[in-house]
Amino acid sequence: MTVSREVELSGHIIDSGMMQTCFGIVMDMGGSFSVEEFDIGRHKEDESYARLLVEADDPEHLQSIIHELHQNGANPADPKDATLEPAPADQVVPHGFYSTTNHPTYVRYDGEWVGVENIEMDCAVVVEDGAEPRAYTKVLNAVEEGDRIVTGDTGIKVEPPERPRDSGGAFGFMQGGVSSERPSESTIEKIANAIEETKKEGGKVLAVCGPALIHSGAREELARLVREGYVDMLSAGNGFAVHDIERDLYGTSLGVDTETLDHARHGHKHHIYTISEVIREGSIPEAVESGTIESGVMYECVENDRPFVLAGSIRDDGPLPDTITDAVEAQNAIREQAHEADMVLMLSTLLHSVAVGNCLPSTTRVVCVDINPATVTQLLDRGSAQAVGMVTDIGTFVPMLAEKLVAEEE
Amino acid sequence: MTVSREVELSGHIIDSGMMQTCFGIVMDMGGSFSVEEFDIGRHKEDESYARLLVEADDPEHLQSIIHELHQNGANPADPKDATLEPAPADQVVPHGFYSTTNHPTYVRYDGEWVGVENIEMDCAVVVEDGAEPRAYTKVLNAVEEGDRIVTGDTGIKVEPPERPRDSGGAFGFMQGGVSSERPSESTIEKIANAIEETKKEGGKVLAVCGPALIHSGAREELARLVREGYVDMLSAGNGFAVHDIERDLYGTSLGVDTETLDHARHGHKHHIYTISEVIREGSIPEAVESGTIESGVMYECVENDRPFVLAGSIRDDGPLPDTITDAVEAQNAIREQAHEADMVLMLSTLLHSVAVGNCLPSTTRVVCVDINPATVTQLLDRGSAQAVGMVTDIGTFVPMLAEKLVAEEE
Amino acid sequence: MTVSREVELSGHIIDSGMMQTCFGIVMDMGGSFSVEEFDIGRHKEDESYARLLVEADDPEHLQSIIHELHQNGANPADPKDATLEPAPADQVVPHGFYSTTNHPTYVRYDGEWVGVENIEMDCAVVVEDGAEPRAYTKVLNAVEEGDRIVTGDTGIKVEPPERPRDSGGAFGFMQGGVSSERPSESTIEKIANAIEETKKEGGKVLAVCGPALIHSGAREELARLVREGYVDMLSAGNGFAVHDIERDLYGTSLGVDTETLDHARHGHKHHIYTISEVIREGSIPEAVESGTIESGVMYECVENDRPFVLAGSIRDDGPLPDTITDAVEAQNAIREQAHEADMVLMLSTLLHSVAVGNCLPSTTRVVCVDINPATVTQLLDRGSAQAVGMVTDIGTFVPMLAEKLVAEEE
Amino acid sequence: MTVSREVELSGHIIDSGMMQTCFGIVMDMGGSFSVEEFDIGRHKEDESYARLLVEADDPEHLQSIIHELHQNGANPADPKDATLEPAPADQVVPHGFYSTTNHPTYVRYDGEWVGVENIEMDCAVVVEDGAEPRAYTKVLNAVEEGDRIVTGDTGIKVEPPERPRDSGGAFGFMQGGVSSERPSESTIEKIANAIEETKKEGGKVLAVCGPALIHSGAREELARLVREGYVDMLSAGNGFAVHDIERDLYGTSLGVDTETLDHARHGHKHHIYTISEVIREGSIPEAVESGTIESGVMYECVENDRPFVLAGSIRDDGPLPDTITDAVEAQNAIREQAHEADMVLMLSTLLHSVAVGNCLPSTTRVVCVDINPATVTQLLDRGSAQAVGMVTDIGTFVPMLAEKLVAEEE
Repeated sequence: MTVSREVELSGHIIDSGMMQTCFGIVMDMGGSFSVEEFDIGRHKEDESYARLLVEADDPEHLQSIIHELHQNGANPADPKDATLEPAPADQVVPHGFYSTTNHPTYVRYDGEWVGVENIEMDCAVVVEDGAEPRAYTKVLNAVEEGDRIVTGDTGIKVEPPERPRDSGGAFGFMQGGVSSERPSESTIEKIANAIEETKKEGGKVLAVCGPALIHSGAREELARLVREGYVDMLSAGNGFAVHDIERDLYGTSLGVDTETLDHARHGHKHHIYTISEVIREGSIPEAVESGTIESGVMYECVENDRPFVLAGSIRDDGPLPDTITDAVEAQNAIREQAHEADMVLMLSTLLHSVAVGNCLPSTTRVVCVDINPATVTQLLDRGSAQAVGMVTDIGTFVPMLAEKLVAEEE
Repeated sequence: MTVSREVELSGHIIDSGMMQTCFGIVMDMGGSFSVEEFDIGRHKEDESYARLLVEADDPEHLQSIIHELHQNGANPADPKDATLEPAPADQVVPHGFYSTTNHPTYVRYDGEWVGVENIEMDCAVVVEDGAEPRAYTKVLNAVEEGDRIVTGDTGIKVEPPERPRDSGGAFGFMQGGVSSERPSESTIEKIANAIEETKKEGGKVLAVCGPALIHSGAREELARLVREGYVDMLSAGNGFAVHDIERDLYGTSLGVDTETLDHARHGHKHHIYTISEVIREGSIPEAVESGTIESGVMYECVENDRPFVLAGSIRDDGPLPDTITDAVEAQNAIREQAHEADMVLMLSTLLHSVAVGNCLPSTTRVVCVDINPATVTQLLDRGSAQAVGMVTDIGTFVPMLAEKLVAEEE
Repeated sequence: MTVSREVELSGHIIDSGMMQTCFGIVMDMGGSFSVEEFDIGRHKEDESYARLLVEADDPEHLQSIIHELHQNGANPADPKDATLEPAPADQVVPHGFYSTTNHPTYVRYDGEWVGVENIEMDCAVVVEDGAEPRAYTKVLNAVEEGDRIVTGDTGIKVEPPERPRDSGGAFGFMQGGVSSERPSESTIEKIANAIEETKKEGGKVLAVCGPALIHSGAREELARLVREGYVDMLSAGNGFAVHDIERDLYGTSLGVDTETLDHARHGHKHHIYTISEVIREGSIPEAVESGTIESGVMYECVENDRPFVLAGSIRDDGPLPDTITDAVEAQNAIREQAHEADMVLMLSTLLHSVAVGNCLPSTTRVVCVDINPATVTQLLDRGSAQAVGMVTDIGTFVPMLAEKLVAEEE
Repeated sequence: MTVSREVELSGHIIDSGMMQTCFGIVMDMGGSFSVEEFDIGRHKEDESYARLLVEADDPEHLQSIIHELHQNGANPADPKDATLEPAPADQVVPHGFYSTTNHPTYVRYDGEWVGVENIEMDCAVVVEDGAEPRAYTKVLNAVEEGDRIVTGDTGIKVEPPERPRDSGGAFGFMQGGVSSERPSESTIEKIANAIEETKKEGGKVLAVCGPALIHSGAREELARLVREGYVDMLSAGNGFAVHDIERDLYGTSLGVDTETLDHARHGHKHHIYTISEVIREGSIPEAVESGTIESGVMYECVENDRPFVLAGSIRDDGPLPDTITDAVEAQNAIREQAHEADMVLMLSTLLHSVAVGNCLPSTTRVVCVDINPATVTQLLDRGSAQAVGMVTDIGTFVPMLAEKLVAEEE
């Protein structure tokens, strides 16, 4: 016995690799297929269309192949409504729940395709009934007993990014992945252009920052980008904020200290004092208001109303009163920022970049900068359609970026 | 005007580098000194003694020099009682508080030297009065208003590790830092010997584990080390436990999956299912008891009563009900484990190793294994006296270690 | 005006990515195409066939597109003979010379397809007339005035590897590139199987070795693989051989030395002595014959008639009399070995692995092992069809490999 | 029986670590010592003096301890003439030859201390008789039968660098090793100052360059540094020169190419063409003279009479006619440059930097820049007294350096 089902692919299905991926899936999983229709785009701006008849040995086998095709953008030619099942308990998903990709996704409900809100990877999809039915993602720990959760693969449509090769615009260059081969200055210039373009379109830029940014001397230039409105939101850890404020509190002498061994000697004590002082004031905004903190990245965030999320971690000293110590709460705060962002700059932090990246749809622009190529590769592997990585020194990158942004402005 | 004070050094002050460090501190900080007495150990087992007269321009200058000398093991020849000041508020330290090193430390109280309990880096020292006065460390967030906190440098004695070159015992080899130059197999053998020795002395071994250990196929061998009692405690993150349990729940097929592309495809869904299943059961121990989890590292921990701490992080899926999501609570749990450990194996995780390392006194034996040399270097830089680092593949290290431990046993 | 030409693709053109690559080339380079025929393989063992009509604005434009398609396996549907031009001078190529890929290549001469011998990357193709015309590669410095060199793209057929996903055999696993995600022990087992299979087929295994192999203690196990016939040829640098022989000449004490600081102190002098001794004897084989060298990798090579090439470099001490100091001569010796090899083990050396890799056709099996992921990635990027990379410790890899090979044997 | 000998230490023996090292050597090697005199410098500018009586079990034991002390700057209090033995054959050293360090060294001959010329590591010292006796180093392959070579340790004086902590001058900052902790821009500024100072003192700057410098877009700025006289000599490989010239020959279009995939496609053919063109012209200088090469680093070297050495390697294409293919000849050319240099910039090349570093005395200023921390660490480990390492992106480093040098000039 053989069972079969028709699936369709459309868009830049060749150039994006979608067709090859789908053909490969069927073959790898032991099915077979025939191409029933194939209209190919002859020019790069043309879209293509293909309809395949997929065959497998039994319904379950077919189902697993169809599932994989789904996740990669091939959709059944004969859509039915999605299957819904209630969550059996809080934080427990029904068997066979549909686990999301980070690509734009639609769920068929009452014969209509409903867009899934706040799409991100590895979530469940909850459908709410009503005059205008809604579908949205929920992470596991947000699932509540009785939530109507999509199961199986029926009635789901996924649209992986198409990556036409020169889509124009500032992000056209963001296709080739890690750019260790690209000239550094030109790449920074293009990233500057992409930020400009995002701002012109009214988009929001989220900077995700690690403490290496402070250590490598890029603090003042990042503060300037915050002040001048190139960075709209900040996501970082407790350590980033403490180092930033410590440079302010222990003022002019520190410039010298970072170049002598004295720094290493007193550093940790200053660190603890800094936290202690902010606790005494109540919070970073209060310490800014009272005039205790007078400069730096956190200062500019407070002064210019750029929201920031400081997420705690087990290696923190303190922490600062502004740091969210609960990982689930911190994730929720990060999630909110990530969903608002139109462009994300991941600057020298693996942990926070992964946390933000987990919440991003594949359509958000991402720039990832780190001196460790493994970090850049790992972050770009997460499947963003518009991501560029650069292996460089954050201490030279931020000043060069700031200079180019301001130069363009003037 | 010149002010001066006598300080003393004793022990293996040359071989350990203490004398050079102290001479360097005085000169770097602009003071001067004369050597008033110098009895040198002629043989390596001999101890040495030096008494210096340190001179500076004014009392404050002298004070800052004396502070640094302190931290590095030179103690005033004319000890006075430590100065105590009450903490002005919860989580706020008095100005001039003494910030600890990770070396054994004594505080002078009522003319007696009182050992500081639970010594770890960057803490305050609290002194409790009573029939038997006590001194112990408190991290900043544990400081309570009114705690009597040591300030200044008077009446404090620090004993940095002495590192005599061949102190004998299995840890004699643990002096040279990162061992990329050492033959891999011999180094693993020596680490095995050190574990054996620790166990023979009745010591406890804490394994700090990252998920790479599971991915690289070392799960079964680590489970065996837990079962056979070479690992007494486990410190890890949510991801480690989930991957470990996922291998159990999705059973025999997974063995094949890890070698094909199928794994990558289904991996994340299995991941979420695994967490969901454990949540349904209530916790890992309950899932073991009910027979849902039947093998692996977490299974052996539960079955053999090896306590584990799973610390949450912002990149977690789920998390599991057993994961401590609050960073401060998690640190406290880690701290407790760290203080109980006599030997710590840091296996392919930077984040958790730093968190554990922060809580360790410099006298705890530490083995740090990672394939990234930067990770090993960073972890060893934290000043443990008996630490060895090895840049190797955790997927070959754990099986070889297990084989050597068992071979020695039989 | 538009010009057009038909090209054909056949084989596993979807699964191998060839079709997507070719479609992409036409679109990227500003041409267009229509699919005139498309017979798709429905099962993974089926071959596919596609005929495209490629259009461009002018003949030169068309030509450049056709050239790229060529290099990637699409061949003109209407083949003509290749164009030949004489080399204008020694080491000078005619304008428009055809620069080879490392894939199997055929040249059309007198209406017949002639296979290009000794295919390797970036060479010229020389055609020799005669009863049986021959075509073979020449590197630039071997080109002689008057050599009849292929120019343009006419009459050339390239067959990129097809990579069907589970082609069976021991090398089926060698598709996924760098295996840091794979379980280490299983991967080593599969490499052992691949070596076994190569030997069973009567193939030759070439080991390319760096000095880290000696430092990490894997010398004895590699010597064993040479002795037992798993390694047929050796390619290394002067330093590898010197370290290997030094371990032999400075014998029993060295075992201890590598674990103490004494080694570092005397190492370099022993190094120079070793070279001096071999020079005194005349050569490594003479030093083996005279009994001066009694063990190790070089010893086993000499005793078991495994040919070795030691290539000099500017960082060498000495060098040994057996080391080929001229880079061009050394390349020629390496080239000869590379062409004879059926499987190449690249063990902890970037320089020598690149040199060997440059001379390999894409059909040779390659295993690349290094602890630095960047090295593995760089080596695998060179386009071998049957290459597997493993990021691991050479000091644990070689012993585990040797154990598995011997275990299988017994 | 015990034998003993007096040795003396003088200079900044504490601050430089010399005293600790020497005490450690005696104890590690199983000897004992008493301090017979110890005049300590109280201020950092003061020198110290110590005289030790070293005791050992027998003359051979004493001799090996004295040898180690020697190498680290402790000299016998009762100097005798050095022992000389003729080399038994070409490239063969007499047993017990003295193998040099890279520190300034003196040999006692006829009761006088003769400075050893061209000091570098791992060489033999040859003494030439005459009115003014000379002593100089010879690498093993330069040793000729009958050369009078220093053996044993008698009559040799080594002066390790003293590293007073703030010796003033631009190189004062060059003490702390790898500067990943230092602010990037400030560090680059200090390197610029050091270059300025070297030039002001009439010193020569040697740039050792890898091809990554070209790939990362720093070619024009390096060419400018050559043109403006900040770089006096160049040491590189064949690949560096080919990439540099290729950018010139394939001109304006290349700017675009480096940012598209087209570059990768045509790159290698251009590479071969470039070499072929230079061969046709005869050499790089001839190609510059004929107007074929019109810009770039090699162009500026030729136009401004900055001597360059291109050393061949087994991974080269071509090579260019200017490339020295014999490793021994190339080393000799590198050695000559190294001995002339007062400051060496090692820019993104491990192989060539090691080759140059091997020939440098410990007194030459060295700046080592690479994005791979392991490379920087390895290069700095070679024992230069005035070396600074920076882990950064060469593509941002060179432009920033050039800007600062020119800014200072104006």
